[in-house]
Amino acid sequence: MKASIITIGDEILIGQIVDSNSAYIAEQLNSIGVKVIKMLSVGDDRLAIINALDEASVGADVLIVTGGLGPTNDDITKNALAEFTGAGGWRIDEPSLEIIRQITTQRGLPMNRQNRDQARVPDNCETLLNRLGTAPGLWFDRVRTSIISLPGVPFEMQALMKDVVQRLQTSLRLPPVFHRTIATCGMPESVLAEHIAAWEHALPSGIRLAYLPNPLTGVRLRLSVYRPDATTEVLVAKAIDDLRAILGDVIYGEGDDTLASVVGRLLRQRHATVAVAESCTGGKIASLLTSVAGSSAYFKGGVVAYDNAVKTDLLQVCASDILTYGAVSLPVVEQMAEGVRRLLKTDYAVATSGIAGPDGGTAQKPVGTVCIAVATTQGATSRTGQFTNDRLRNIDRSAATALNMLRLKVINDESKPRFR
Amino acid sequence: MKASIITIGDEILIGQIVDSNSAYIAEQLNSIGVKVIKMLSVGDDRLAIINALDEASVGADVLIVTGGLGPTNDDITKNALAEFTGAGGWRIDEPSLEIIRQITTQRGLPMNRQNRDQARVPDNCETLLNRLGTAPGLWFDRVRTSIISLPGVPFEMQALMKDVVQRLQTSLRLPPVFHRTIATCGMPESVLAEHIAAWEHALPSGIRLAYLPNPLTGVRLRLSVYRPDATTEVLVAKAIDDLRAILGDVIYGEGDDTLASVVGRLLRQRHATVAVAESCTGGKIASLLTSVAGSSAYFKGGVVAYDNAVKTDLLQVCASDILTYGAVSLPVVEQMAEGVRRLLKTDYAVATSGIAGPDGGTAQKPVGTVCIAVATTQGATSRTGQFTNDRLRNIDRSAATALNMLRLKVINDESKPRFR
Repeated sequence: MKASIITIGDEILIGQIVDSNSAYIAEQLNSIGVKVIKMLSVGDDRLAIINALDEASVGADVLIVTGGLGPTNDDITKNALAEFTGAGGWRIDEPSLEIIRQITTQRGLPMNRQNRDQARVPDNCETLLNRLGTAPGLWFDRVRTSIISLPGVPFEMQALMKDVVQRLQTSLRLPPVFHRTIATCGMPESVLAEHIAAWEHALPSGIRLAYLPNPLTGVRLRLSVYRPDATTEVLVAKAIDDLRAILGDVIYGEGDDTLASVVGRLLRQRHATVAVAESCTGGKIASLLTSVAGSSAYFKGGVVAYDNAVKTDLLQVCASDILTYGAVSLPVVEQMAEGVRRLLKTDYAVATSGIAGPDGGTAQKPVGTVCIAVATTQGATSRTGQFTNDRLRNIDRSAATALNMLRLKVINDESKPRFR
Repeated sequence: MKASIITIGDEILIGQIVDSNSAYIAEQLNSIGVKVIKMLSVGDDRLAIINALDEASVGADVLIVTGGLGPTNDDITKNALAEFTGAGGWRIDEPSLEIIRQITTQRGLPMNRQNRDQARVPDNCETLLNRLGTAPGLWFDRVRTSIISLPGVPFEMQALMKDVVQRLQTSLRLPPVFHRTIATCGMPESVLAEHIAAWEHALPSGIRLAYLPNPLTGVRLRLSVYRPDATTEVLVAKAIDDLRAILGDVIYGEGDDTLASVVGRLLRQRHATVAVAESCTGGKIASLLTSVAGSSAYFKGGVVAYDNAVKTDLLQVCASDILTYGAVSLPVVEQMAEGVRRLLKTDYAVATSGIAGPDGGTAQKPVGTVCIAVATTQGATSRTGQFTNDRLRNIDRSAATALNMLRLKVINDESKPRFR
């Protein structure tokens, strides 16, 4: 089964926004075995949209369209869809109208004609109820190419794509594709590929492997079976067990796990707590940890110690060590970690101190030099990383490395056993 | 003058990467007055590429193509281009070969056939020298639609686009477009539009206005003159002065300014310093402030006070106030701001305490309730915001609101005059 994607909006064509909707939709379709053959972006213009519908239909069983933002643009898209699909007329979709009523009331807005019109849909389509916004999804079931139109607001589109994926699987009797994704950190893609080459070669023929590298957090490995049967689950589980035996703690999680969510889970399992002391990462590690819902159970807080006075006064870093070794040094970053651990009375702490750039580098410590420490009740360990020339990438990579060091420390810490 | 953009790569069609190249190219073309009429993405497949070249040529004077990543995919694109443009044969581009030699030597790789082939180009195109990678750009000057092929690696593509933009301006005698962009914060798009309707109406006919809304940081207003003359700069400056008189401090900056960079500039001008105390934003404000190069000049640090014990022990928040008013309350957030300001000895401080969600909401304080305070040497002021149901959006909006409150406080603080 094949699909094309059209995104509509002047704001895309002037480069004002990056079209991330297409990638999301493609990833969702791909996960159920639907192959995307083309993506197309055009402006808010009747003729351009109709031409795009025509072009994108070629060879596609399904065509997913996401509209521009706002009632005005939605209208152009809707009219073009009605014209292209040969709708006989229009109808008011009552369930959608009811949601529009609720939303306008909630926002304290009057129910004007523009709002009401969003419930007006071509009479040859079904609607997909949009509970998060005022524009419903439209599903035109057609002999050759079915067309599905979704709102352009990403979180509304994403919610509706869940329904679309389910309905495509059911109505088109797609076999449910079986996926498992393994997340790794700390091994570059080329090294990883070499390391698991024999394992990959020995994979049962029905299991397909995809490398999904992310420059920041590492490589994800996706195992897919497009025609699963009774043995699939066991076969894939066996393959993953073998992979774990090879990669060990290079694997940090599965599915949508992030380093921060995995660290959180590990701490929870051990009834343990963590604090951070950040210099060069400037709050990034805390921000990643607290992006996880429920993180207050294990994250007590932290100190952003940008100024050296904060390192000495608050974290009890020895001032003479800063003079002797520099603020970016292993002794200092270890004291930062130990200092914040004592200050906030936690089981673990991580600390960073580095030269994010663009200025501040020296011959001995060029831009991208970052010291990272992890402290436990048993003391601190630390290492120096050498990253890039780019400030924001240095911050991101330092934060990811720090979280991974914390993860490994928690896993291997015999003094804090996991509760069951 | 009109353009289309084609991006080529299987990794785009499976949703593995978001195509940010198209937006970059569109923005660059738009800045010189070239209108993008279509964007198209197809896989690494000869026929798909040729069909895309055909479709995208319709109505376009220029067609920009960016290839997939790596020598294998580049080859498919190059062959398809040669076929589509009717090249008579191939030639080796010596300057490109020289660069390939340098790069392979630098990386300690042998100069193999695959590398050498990257300098092999159709005989009917000129090359654009790529100093950052091994694949040159190709420029096919054609009667109707000129085709320009660029490597898919973003930073290589971006470097080559500089040349492309210059050459387009010169060879096509495009007038240099004049732009100025004004950044606003704190006024929703619809309110802003109403507020400046008369001003917009009175704009000189040559000045075009575009609204560039961003759900997080506010609306940017871009004024463009597509055929600038000697009077343009003065006319636009006058229009912006008038706009400033209407909007006052709703305008926070110009061009690429961010709230964090503007706050930084204001603090520098006043030789003033700032600290943060973050509960619900969990390090996000510190992270935004420190994303700006040179922020160590005014940002001393902060405390992420997730746990109430950190609020009372480190920031001296009165424990009974937490019991009486709750941790998410104006008295508590004001004490957090004052506490961190004293602790880190800064001129200013901001603090946040809120319910980011998804859990923790009550009838009185639903998810999305966020208290924000700014402290100066004169005491603290605070307000409560009511944001969304989404954890990450709540964190982002709270951080942006806090930075904007800090900005307004610094601007209006008579006790800290600006140095000149």
